[in-house]
Amino acid sequence: MKKHNFSAGPCILPQEVLKKASDAILNFNGIDLSLIEISHRSKDFIAVMDKAQELALEHLGLQNKGYKALFLQGGASTQFLNVAYNLLNKKAAYLNTGTWSTKAIKEAKLFGEIVEVASSKDANFNYIPKGYAIPSDIDYFHCTSNNTIFGTQIKDFPKVSAPLVCDMSSDIFSRQLDFSKFDIIYAGAQKNMGPAGTTLVVIKEEVLGKVDRAIPSMLDYRVHAEKDSMFNTPPVFAVYVSMLTLQWLKDLGGITEIEKRNNAKAELIYSEIDRNPLFKGFAAKEDRSPMNATFNLVDEAHKDTFDALAKEAGLNGINGHRSVGGYRASMYNALPIESVQVLVDAMQELERKA
Amino acid sequence: MKKHNFSAGPCILPQEVLKKASDAILNFNGIDLSLIEISHRSKDFIAVMDKAQELALEHLGLQNKGYKALFLQGGASTQFLNVAYNLLNKKAAYLNTGTWSTKAIKEAKLFGEIVEVASSKDANFNYIPKGYAIPSDIDYFHCTSNNTIFGTQIKDFPKVSAPLVCDMSSDIFSRQLDFSKFDIIYAGAQKNMGPAGTTLVVIKEEVLGKVDRAIPSMLDYRVHAEKDSMFNTPPVFAVYVSMLTLQWLKDLGGITEIEKRNNAKAELIYSEIDRNPLFKGFAAKEDRSPMNATFNLVDEAHKDTFDALAKEAGLNGINGHRSVGGYRASMYNALPIESVQVLVDAMQELERKA
Repeated sequence: MKKHNFSAGPCILPQEVLKKASDAILNFNGIDLSLIEISHRSKDFIAVMDKAQELALEHLGLQNKGYKALFLQGGASTQFLNVAYNLLNKKAAYLNTGTWSTKAIKEAKLFGEIVEVASSKDANFNYIPKGYAIPSDIDYFHCTSNNTIFGTQIKDFPKVSAPLVCDMSSDIFSRQLDFSKFDIIYAGAQKNMGPAGTTLVVIKEEVLGKVDRAIPSMLDYRVHAEKDSMFNTPPVFAVYVSMLTLQWLKDLGGITEIEKRNNAKAELIYSEIDRNPLFKGFAAKEDRSPMNATFNLVDEAHKDTFDALAKEAGLNGINGHRSVGGYRASMYNALPIESVQVLVDAMQELERKA
Repeated sequence: MKKHNFSAGPCILPQEVLKKASDAILNFNGIDLSLIEISHRSKDFIAVMDKAQELALEHLGLQNKGYKALFLQGGASTQFLNVAYNLLNKKAAYLNTGTWSTKAIKEAKLFGEIVEVASSKDANFNYIPKGYAIPSDIDYFHCTSNNTIFGTQIKDFPKVSAPLVCDMSSDIFSRQLDFSKFDIIYAGAQKNMGPAGTTLVVIKEEVLGKVDRAIPSMLDYRVHAEKDSMFNTPPVFAVYVSMLTLQWLKDLGGITEIEKRNNAKAELIYSEIDRNPLFKGFAAKEDRSPMNATFNLVDEAHKDTFDALAKEAGLNGINGHRSVGGYRASMYNALPIESVQVLVDAMQELERKA
């Protein structure tokens, strides 16, 4: 049976990418060796790494603008501390919009003074704070563009004079933004870019080298930038599948095209959430994420019936995170609108049965 | 044409492991979803992680002895700093046997005083220093069990009263040792365990929690131990393939059996190096590594002829590292002795032709 994969991450990847990845495990580039048993210094793999970096910058419109695209290990969680290690001299400002922002703040506090400019914790992070003031004497400002757990997304980023750092793990490559406003963008691969195991870090190089502390090599962005992500053995497979996924995105028309598709999927599910009297949305309407739609049953008594309908329809990964409950439909780039329609059909079927 | 894969790492993996990994990319466990597009919190993946940890401890004979096996990201290079972050209060002692030891020392120096008890740098690391004194007032002693680049291996580990920490990246699971003498063993997966992208860290838990500094979560062994390697999204694919490879090793008889096979391969190549007048071994005989045999041509004039013979025979990855030159035959667990015989045949063919 065909599954409709709404998993929040690791999440659905394009079928053609999976097919190519599967083939490369047996015989990569027709060299009669597996992708995962050759040297990362071989010309075949260096071409993969170069292409992945090039495609990342191209999609973001950041080629030849002083940026480097790095493919590192350790997840966004490692970037929480790397950002502070590399940029924080005395004080930084953070916007707290959820679980991941909170974790980023916790790690940064080990390295300097952190000003939390605003938080939506008062309402279980169901909205994005606005109209907050950002101190001017900061080393950088940090925010999380999309909150997977709560289903919110920043639509307008604040103007800041300090470097702007953004965790875009769950919505990178999903919508057009002026990415040149950002000085550091980082994102775990396992949503819109590839499998778990690598993290993209896009850095405007001029912001580096301004802290006094000694930085261990593996945490030092300058070391990785100088070595083009090859300071040590990179996570070969994860970089390869990311490259394939970025190429897939380019072939179908890039961020401009995928944003249209993502908006159509979002419109479909949110219209149903608002129309169907059995469901209610969790996130504030103006802050809704096209990536993760969070919603709850008005009456929990319908839970077993809806769960059975969902299972019957092949809907996978729609349970909400424990901090929100209810349901969450993660609709990353590779999810076809047909899967969203199947979910909407199940919601309407519940309405008929209830 | 069949390739004989002597790559130094990432390196050869068992064919049956590659086949299973390739299949899992398309349909994992028959669940009609790819291994790399499901939640790491799913029961299917948790079973993989649990099994990988269990097999690692089982192979090392360390079950129920106060050890945890963790699968982390960042390579052994990240452990260079993690070891110091977690264990170094004032002073630690390091044995310098090559490039990787040197790097480990460099990172540790950021955190305290490092005593280099001995070094074989004077002879381009072609031997393992012996008879050195280890200070008693140290937080730990660190060594590198096998030196991939130079082809040397520590046969007898020193007795130390402080915790014993060992980078076993290039010979873990290849030979029997009393692993309970070690307090921390770490190893990048990409030699005997799996693909690049995960690092095994085996820790005797009682050595942790004895430093005063605040440790960032992602660098804190206690955090990863408490969360069973699931503090953040693990490198799913690399852990899965490591689990498959550890299971393959168990099925063929474990370290006891593989050590016999590795010794037979080493005997075959080193006998030829010593017999063939056109070649000379690089490493001191008593310190030779069964994993990486390093050797040079006596007369470089034969280089083009031998390289052509090697290519014709399908020998892949036998060029030596630039710091040693010549040739290096990496003979990790998955390399069949037949491949070593093909290399020996090529060396004898050169002798006939020269």
